Amino acid sequence: MIRVIACGKAREKWMMEGIREYTKRISGYDKIELTEVSDEKAPESNSAAENEAVKKLEGERLLKSIKPQEYVILLDLAGEPCDSVGLSEKIQDLQLHGHSRIDFVIGGSLGLSRELIQRADFRWKLSDNTFPHQLCRIMVLEQVYRSFRIMHHEPYHK
Amino acid sequence: MIRVIACGKAREKWMMEGIREYTKRISGYDKIELTEVSDEKAPESNSAAENEAVKKLEGERLLKSIKPQEYVILLDLAGEPCDSVGLSEKIQDLQLHGHSRIDFVIGGSLGLSRELIQRADFRWKLSDNTFPHQLCRIMVLEQVYRSFRIMHHEPYHK
Repeated sequence: MIRVIACGKAREKWMMEGIREYTKRISGYDKIELTEVSDEKAPESNSAAENEAVKKLEGERLLKSIKPQEYVILLDLAGEPCDSVGLSEKIQDLQLHGHSRIDFVIGGSLGLSRELIQRADFRWKLSDNTFPHQLCRIMVLEQVYRSFRIMHHEPYHK
Repeated sequence: MIRVIACGKAREKWMMEGIREYTKRISGYDKIELTEVSDEKAPESNSAAENEAVKKLEGERLLKSIKPQEYVILLDLAGEPCDSVGLSEKIQDLQLHGHSRIDFVIGGSLGLSRELIQRADFRWKLSDNTFPHQLCRIMVLEQVYRSFRIMHHEPYHK
């Protein structure tokens, strides 16, 4: 089972449609679930301490939705790259070794709390570039779908 | 003026909507144009030589739509990373130095022809991961929009 756990709701219709599309495709290979925890407002006027508090609170909500036996792949600009073939091998390897539940965790807009980073089993840098976390959800789902296609030796456009 | 030049048409409705959304947002900062050149069928049964021919043909079409004075940023898995702040600085720097026309070029599904790589002024690795080139279009447009937000010191969610 694959879960994508993220902060905040996808609001734009086209993004929701993209998420739905890849979720549907992945469901042909494995159970897939999208978990959205609520985000906090973080206005520009926030002090550094207020932003830190938001990050911590969002981190706690994300952590609370992760179960102990789940393998956590955390999307992290400070993490390691893992190309599409590598991700496919990683998922296959995890599943072969009894990690039937894999979570992809996408933090909030202010970044990742220390506790979240500590819980991560793998910190994945999908790109050096920052993306809106809603678009990031689509990108992660697409990579998961691609992983299954690669795993099953099925053709897939680039 | 910014152009995104890509191979093949975006077909899925949600992707077209995403492209439209970011194009509209960018147009508040600069002229933005999306150029789609037609792609070739590349069935799995193709020989390596046939695939090479497709790559070359698609490359020629992309090249033909690039004007001599345009600065070409080529999306290339073998290129260099350039984070969001770096891209913003790059665009600003180019515009300050008379490069008023910047092209982001996204190749076809079989990869980049040698001629295209030779024409590139900058080869940009947006990610180690392969994405469908239609989704890649949205990702590039989002990064261009983000660049302008950064350049104008305007807040933008992550």
